[in-house]
Amino acid sequence: MANGHILGEYLIDQLANHGVGHVFGIPGDYVLSFYDLLSKSEKLEIINTCDEQGAGFAADAYARLKGLGAVCITYGVGGLKVANTTAQAYAEKSPVIIISGAPGVKEQINDPLLHHKVRDFQTQKRVFDEFTVASAVLDNADNALCEIDRLIHTALKYKRPVYLELPRDMVFAEVSAEHCHPLSIDRTDDETLDEALSEAVEWINKSSQPVILAGVEIHRFGLQEELAAFATKSGIPVAATILSKSVVADSMPLYMGIYEGATGLDEIQRYVESSDCLIILGALMTDLNLGIYTAEIDPKKSIYITSDRLSIKRHLFEDILFEDFINGLGKANIFPRQVTDIPRPHKPQPITPGSNSNEKLTVERLFQHINSMIDDDTIVVADVGDALFGANDLYIHQSTEFLSPAYYASLGFAVPGGLGAQLAMPEKRPLILVGDGAFQMTGMELSAIARYGLNPIVIVINNKGYSTERPMLDGPFNDIHPWHFYEIPKVLGVGIGYLVETEEQLIRALQEVKILEEFSLIDVAIGRDDRSPALNRLTSRLANNVKST
Amino acid sequence: MANGHILGEYLIDQLANHGVGHVFGIPGDYVLSFYDLLSKSEKLEIINTCDEQGAGFAADAYARLKGLGAVCITYGVGGLKVANTTAQAYAEKSPVIIISGAPGVKEQINDPLLHHKVRDFQTQKRVFDEFTVASAVLDNADNALCEIDRLIHTALKYKRPVYLELPRDMVFAEVSAEHCHPLSIDRTDDETLDEALSEAVEWINKSSQPVILAGVEIHRFGLQEELAAFATKSGIPVAATILSKSVVADSMPLYMGIYEGATGLDEIQRYVESSDCLIILGALMTDLNLGIYTAEIDPKKSIYITSDRLSIKRHLFEDILFEDFINGLGKANIFPRQVTDIPRPHKPQPITPGSNSNEKLTVERLFQHINSMIDDDTIVVADVGDALFGANDLYIHQSTEFLSPAYYASLGFAVPGGLGAQLAMPEKRPLILVGDGAFQMTGMELSAIARYGLNPIVIVINNKGYSTERPMLDGPFNDIHPWHFYEIPKVLGVGIGYLVETEEQLIRALQEVKILEEFSLIDVAIGRDDRSPALNRLTSRLANNVKST
Repeated sequence: MANGHILGEYLIDQLANHGVGHVFGIPGDYVLSFYDLLSKSEKLEIINTCDEQGAGFAADAYARLKGLGAVCITYGVGGLKVANTTAQAYAEKSPVIIISGAPGVKEQINDPLLHHKVRDFQTQKRVFDEFTVASAVLDNADNALCEIDRLIHTALKYKRPVYLELPRDMVFAEVSAEHCHPLSIDRTDDETLDEALSEAVEWINKSSQPVILAGVEIHRFGLQEELAAFATKSGIPVAATILSKSVVADSMPLYMGIYEGATGLDEIQRYVESSDCLIILGALMTDLNLGIYTAEIDPKKSIYITSDRLSIKRHLFEDILFEDFINGLGKANIFPRQVTDIPRPHKPQPITPGSNSNEKLTVERLFQHINSMIDDDTIVVADVGDALFGANDLYIHQSTEFLSPAYYASLGFAVPGGLGAQLAMPEKRPLILVGDGAFQMTGMELSAIARYGLNPIVIVINNKGYSTERPMLDGPFNDIHPWHFYEIPKVLGVGIGYLVETEEQLIRALQEVKILEEFSLIDVAIGRDDRSPALNRLTSRLANNVKST
Repeated sequence: MANGHILGEYLIDQLANHGVGHVFGIPGDYVLSFYDLLSKSEKLEIINTCDEQGAGFAADAYARLKGLGAVCITYGVGGLKVANTTAQAYAEKSPVIIISGAPGVKEQINDPLLHHKVRDFQTQKRVFDEFTVASAVLDNADNALCEIDRLIHTALKYKRPVYLELPRDMVFAEVSAEHCHPLSIDRTDDETLDEALSEAVEWINKSSQPVILAGVEIHRFGLQEELAAFATKSGIPVAATILSKSVVADSMPLYMGIYEGATGLDEIQRYVESSDCLIILGALMTDLNLGIYTAEIDPKKSIYITSDRLSIKRHLFEDILFEDFINGLGKANIFPRQVTDIPRPHKPQPITPGSNSNEKLTVERLFQHINSMIDDDTIVVADVGDALFGANDLYIHQSTEFLSPAYYASLGFAVPGGLGAQLAMPEKRPLILVGDGAFQMTGMELSAIARYGLNPIVIVINNKGYSTERPMLDGPFNDIHPWHFYEIPKVLGVGIGYLVETEEQLIRALQEVKILEEFSLIDVAIGRDDRSPALNRLTSRLANNVKST
């Protein structure tokens, strides 16, 4: 057929053309024929997880690193299990395409009670309309191809998830581009950009202490190098947010560290908040990014651009694309300055075991050891809790990646996230930091990690409960049943488990795992009330909200 | 305060007044103060699960047995994880109340980016409006008490889930019943009931082969005894659907077994479909109940009542409550008849090990052994797959319970369902039947079973993949990573695991587990292509749908 395609094949081709190499999910009868097509394709590899939730988190991590991720699940019982992971991808700007099988168009006639159906055949789409930027049910061969193009385009434009529902009798439908309208491409208005850049540059040049606050959109739009070049050329110091950690390497001379209001380090808070020209690039103004709103950022002293808006002081500019403004700054005639005496991250020193290396490990020493093993080939994937907040101070090398759900904060991201991360970047090795509570949610996705022969290092920070909550309000509900995490390789038949209680044991384990080609799980016993300084600062703020409300 | 209450305490009191003794969930900061209140209450016990999904399934099972269940989770990351389990409760009529914490009313002013927020503060409520029969955000002290009453009333009336959102600054708000309107109570219209009953009774009396098809609503409305009394008094034989298995005991002389069209047993299909007066009581006309629509049920020959509608032949009656019609039938003057020669379930015979007791176990022999150990104190909880379809032929004693998601069919129900079931009925012991694929989704909720000292017997039917899908369309996507399930007690530090490959090993394990006071997990190795006759019949029908579409 001229210009014709088979719908399912076209979808596979378009995913592959946009860099997707793996599709995460679990089959079910409504999506089985598409799975068959996927498995016969040489372009995409199916990655089976244990539960759909794991597929959702893995695809989110994959999308953060590759620019697009895909989940493929069955109707209802599969789709609704990725509601939460899709909500996270929406909140934290991760472009994931959700492909859900569905009863055939012909089967849906007369609205029968088919299995996996909730209320009506539109229920699932309406749910996903709440946390996607576009959705389509491919029930019409005339526009199915255009709809696939539109969904992928929209996901890439907004860096957010889209929902595609594929009735099973459409997988082999013949589709063509005959009826497609060209997709509208957003363009920057040149005159508006000139005006905004002129104003910004003039202000930056006459300011005495400009500071760049680099947010997560720098990462999502792949502008890390442009940002570093701009900062280096202009000599303006840079801070990041906790959600955007790793957009600038700690080794970059102008990088100060993570800014997070009063829950972060004092010297960074002072430096950022005393700026007379704060250049906020793609940061989300969330409570966790802003230290539970302890940040004192004055709009009158800020240039603030995201993919949605640009403001300078109190006035707004429309029709400027995020990347064009960043690139424009890089080319602009900005007066190069020399700063001295800015806060700097501490480069990890080679650590020697303390004299107490047979005593119980502390969070502080644990993170010092972790710091010493991170290199350019590491992807740190941190779960919520001290895995994330303790990781605040980890030293990020030139091309280390750091992934974490630092805004939406869904526990259980890290293990399936590590699966997605290593498949996205097979030349790197994930270091998964996860608390015991988060591990109990999704940690058995190590099964998928075992199945596909991956070798992340998993460090379970085992402090016997939900330790982020203990300082806010404690009770038996913050305890969890103690697992012998180090025994999990026995269940999976793959991997090496370590029980670590002392520094000496940690050192030995970290040396061994370096050379392993299978996954390793280090179960680190931490005292029930031992927390990183960062987590202590955060939880004392959060506790105020629990108690005052 | 006169007639006054503290909102959180009132909610706890009302749950307890309606028979709820346990609340399933995981805390988070937005729900922490309510957890504190719960944990100090002597009326409700908090049951912590590993993941919110487990809490959702456990509460569903609990609601099926106790008449009301409760889940309590935090905002966003907790709430959206129970979207799928709530959808199942909706589809299969299980009255679960979802209690979600939320940012305080005062915190929500100006729509800040608080952690766990997706799009706006109404997102989560709109999602739950898709699969609940009522919802409320308790953001107003004037009507909060009335709203709690309305939600519980509605859940009980429709036997479906409701959604309650509790902003954290409302937990200690003072509320009163001052502004409440009386709840409208549905009543049967007596004249309509008389007319419908007269017509039904006259028809039944003159029919030559009436048959009762007893559906799941008999269970949900607690009408099992009324149904059995009516059948016994009138001498009319009874069949059940797969979703309603156990509404009639197999030992009841007029019970024939499960009717499920051409996917069930021939003799039951013939008997039911040749009825000239089929009395369908509370059955959902779903694809799985109707053998993928192979059932030939003629409306002209049917009396069909559910909680939503009553029809006799082609005409409808409104304003008749389900329970009033069932009770009316029981009191009506129905001609007692004697039937002979109806299909009957086979009472399990004491089985002796075959001469091949050292050879590999088959599904058939496995279910024979399971059959022999079921008694009045057993609650069978069957997951989707051969755990359910093979369980079709299990012999249900006088007061055995049988729970399964036989319509919505969400894999992973059984282990957390067993947790909920044993807490709902502590005098009984769950026998959990679960496939290897379903176990990998939620089986680690054995951790909660261990924590609360429960002792279900878990039988993992380990056939190395998604064996319901293999006969439809097979590929590597139907394989799963092999787990040594029997090693899981080592991870949890509680429980006894068995690896069973032969009949001899099975017999030994079943004998041992009878007296155990901790959970046991029997990992039964089954051949990759060994399936029960029922599953073979079902999948050959489902395969047609996969292939023809």
